Amino acid sequence: MNKAQRDMIFSQATKWIYEAGEQIRKQIHNPLTIDTKSNANDLVTEMDRSTEAFLANNIKSTFTDHFILSEEGYGDQLDSMNGIVWIIDPIDGTMNFVHQKRNFAISIGIFNNGIGEIGLIYNVMEDVLYSAKRGEGAYKNNKKLPQLHHDILFQEAIVSMNHFWLCENRLVDEKWMQKLVKDVRGSRTYGSAALEFAFVAEGIIDSYLTLSLSPWDYAAGMVIINEVGGVTTTIDGDPLDMLSKTSVASGNPCIQEKIIANYIKKARK
Amino acid sequence: MNKAQRDMIFSQATKWIYEAGEQIRKQIHNPLTIDTKSNANDLVTEMDRSTEAFLANNIKSTFTDHFILSEEGYGDQLDSMNGIVWIIDPIDGTMNFVHQKRNFAISIGIFNNGIGEIGLIYNVMEDVLYSAKRGEGAYKNNKKLPQLHHDILFQEAIVSMNHFWLCENRLVDEKWMQKLVKDVRGSRTYGSAALEFAFVAEGIIDSYLTLSLSPWDYAAGMVIINEVGGVTTTIDGDPLDMLSKTSVASGNPCIQEKIIANYIKKARK
Repeated sequence: MNKAQRDMIFSQATKWIYEAGEQIRKQIHNPLTIDTKSNANDLVTEMDRSTEAFLANNIKSTFTDHFILSEEGYGDQLDSMNGIVWIIDPIDGTMNFVHQKRNFAISIGIFNNGIGEIGLIYNVMEDVLYSAKRGEGAYKNNKKLPQLHHDILFQEAIVSMNHFWLCENRLVDEKWMQKLVKDVRGSRTYGSAALEFAFVAEGIIDSYLTLSLSPWDYAAGMVIINEVGGVTTTIDGDPLDMLSKTSVASGNPCIQEKIIANYIKKARK
Repeated sequence: MNKAQRDMIFSQATKWIYEAGEQIRKQIHNPLTIDTKSNANDLVTEMDRSTEAFLANNIKSTFTDHFILSEEGYGDQLDSMNGIVWIIDPIDGTMNFVHQKRNFAISIGIFNNGIGEIGLIYNVMEDVLYSAKRGEGAYKNNKKLPQLHHDILFQEAIVSMNHFWLCENRLVDEKWMQKLVKDVRGSRTYGSAALEFAFVAEGIIDSYLTLSLSPWDYAAGMVIINEVGGVTTTIDGDPLDMLSKTSVASGNPCIQEKIIANYIKKARK
């Protein structure tokens, strides 16, 4: 993808994400129909679906040869990352959307033959757009985000993760995660993966860990984080698969690498 | 305290809190000198001290017979709650202030003979003031907050607590807290007690639990939560002592009472 093409797609995607956000803000206080998906706390609303349909329809009619990988069913069934693929979460942080009417985001990552070219994370209620084009840096609205500091002390790091890491689970030894939250300076849980990636890119948290995410949760975030010198891998340090669920450890490399090396241990059972 | 006196003090306190916030915003990007207090992660900056000094000086010169209970040493040594006592945290969420430059608050609770009369929590960077006068309801800026719903299902509750609850600790059995985060819909950690109390009052989280807080962390919050029908007690359900550190369980009564009854168990060792 050359710069002109990337710029054109970026411009179009940005326009649509703002329009989608405007629609959500207009309807934020309307009564919601809430359904559940994989479990009772995996929520979906008609706003998730209508936002994804709006984005998918625009993409499909404007870029007839692009593909879509998305959360709510308006995308394509993909078995490869060949071509240009838009990876979309129409509302990341649906629980926050439902319970808080804020702290959620629209997340769009655009990949070309598996390479992340564009990342957009739109904090809808705060009207803050985190964005990046490959090789051109990351932005919070119109302000360029600085490169992450590479001299952060581990004991002064802020780590974001949900509470399940500290409970017995099938993936990691929770005792080591309990040690982690005691060894770093602070831990946070915000309930929106997309926003947590954005916060890593901003440098206001130093690592974000999660047991299981889908590509639409991390596609935009990894592009944006990459542009400020951050890293996004599985909790084993492997590259992320863009076509299936995975664990994710993202962050400032000087913190993320130590977490992977010293705290991520396989579950004992 | 009669209504005229409460209104007059409220008006004065509000003016000062906005002025203090304005000063913080002006200096938010200045280099910080960061000291530590009880431990390496118990941070204090010159901004905590100057904000408290500003408030204390104004209170002392305007209300010569009022007392001050505060975090950074500009208050009085009190052994009772007799008279009118201002309970002040100049920057609640100092770690957020230092690392994030947002998500912190100025917290002021004003008590008369031990009764909470006024609560003010000012989210400085978002310019959002949560406020309450006893018997007159709670507000977010100029908008009155509704009474908390009393029919929230436990399995749909959002609970805010830090990660240490899920690690072995001297106070509670962490296994039951791990069960709690699995039984409710979601859990969050924001790093500012004052803001977490405000979020309870807004109804965007249903309970906030903490192992150890000082009166300046909860004085304003309990007044505000009380005005929307919420409760604030120790984790044993006892009234809070305004003169010493304590555990705190606040929230919507229909959630908070079940947490205390069914999940808070003494530590096993």
